[in-house]
Amino acid sequence: MTESAVASPGTRQRLIEASGELFAELGFRDVTVRQICLRAGANIAAVNYHFRDKESLYREVVLSAYRTARERFPVTQGVSESDPPETRLRAFAKGLLQRIFDDASPPWGRLLAREMVEPTPALDGVIEEGVRPQYALLTQIVREVLGPAASDEAIRRHAASVVGQVLVYQSCRSVMQRLLGGESDGKSQIDALADHITRFSIDAMRSARRTLEGGKPTGKTP
Amino acid sequence: MTESAVASPGTRQRLIEASGELFAELGFRDVTVRQICLRAGANIAAVNYHFRDKESLYREVVLSAYRTARERFPVTQGVSESDPPETRLRAFAKGLLQRIFDDASPPWGRLLAREMVEPTPALDGVIEEGVRPQYALLTQIVREVLGPAASDEAIRRHAASVVGQVLVYQSCRSVMQRLLGGESDGKSQIDALADHITRFSIDAMRSARRTLEGGKPTGKTP
Repeated sequence: MTESAVASPGTRQRLIEASGELFAELGFRDVTVRQICLRAGANIAAVNYHFRDKESLYREVVLSAYRTARERFPVTQGVSESDPPETRLRAFAKGLLQRIFDDASPPWGRLLAREMVEPTPALDGVIEEGVRPQYALLTQIVREVLGPAASDEAIRRHAASVVGQVLVYQSCRSVMQRLLGGESDGKSQIDALADHITRFSIDAMRSARRTLEGGKPTGKTP
Repeated sequence: MTESAVASPGTRQRLIEASGELFAELGFRDVTVRQICLRAGANIAAVNYHFRDKESLYREVVLSAYRTARERFPVTQGVSESDPPETRLRAFAKGLLQRIFDDASPPWGRLLAREMVEPTPALDGVIEEGVRPQYALLTQIVREVLGPAASDEAIRRHAASVVGQVLVYQSCRSVMQRLLGGESDGKSQIDALADHITRFSIDAMRSARRTLEGGKPTGKTP
């Protein structure tokens, strides 16, 4: 194999795809560089040339899978910043649910789920590039619904309550399927689930706002 | 080593403890029977004698860790069936949060988290013995708050909304720590988190009940 075959961008992309499948299947530790190159039809030197080592390739695979999911299912789909918070919250929940229930895209879900149980340095890349800006978007919506009286702590916990309702369909998927059988919600219920989570969260936060503001003078009372 | 040393109940317990640590550390696949017996100070025949094979030992370890957590942190602690649903829901959330934030008990959390990403037959045992009765307890509370007009589907989704708010502190623990640093909630916030999740859920469900019953004739209107 020539130097140019090792260095080609096509080889780089094939390495990412082949190793993504292997990492998702076997986990980071149990995949060898040899296996990756074999599946990618690449020279054994190609991983070293494009990524330096298996660790860096893995980081790139996790990031790349995340970017693909984000592009296919943005959490701001069909909404603008001027839309009411319910509309933005629903788009947020729907985007995440679409990523969770998407079986066609790269093996993002399983790689991330693994990262969440046994984090590696790859998780930091996804957090800085993906999770942090998304979390900022969510806390902005939560802050708007809870109103100016809400503390940072309250905003953080309400944001966790929203995210938890969505992510349970990822982290408990195998449990729900075994527990509920055919009754468990799947891909075709994404819209209904997004509606439910939005309604549940907005109602809870409006009620929290009333409590937060209840004891305060409105400034209009004589 | 004598036959009686292999067969002793002490050996059985040591095998469960030693393999629990190993499985949590390395995952089911990467642990050998030899390693387990070595760490337990047991004869290589002991796994076979007490558990038949590694699979059955693993199922027993997962169940045993689950039982320990359940005994230490019951989801019905300090409440009775006649208590109002808020009180029972708070006990439920607190029990689960205690299990999640407990670092002293057997490596239950990590084993279960692993099972949820890559389920093995061991998950079925935990679901039938543990998750199913707990889920029945939760749906009973949810049904009571939502009222008789709620469908099974509504009850299922509301129960998922409650559970998700709790389990996010397990599935997103590593993400939250990286995202929020010292601000992320931990063991010392268990009571505050249980309060928040109860308030959030009860408010949302009461509001859902008003909507469910709003369009219905009360039977008292002339």
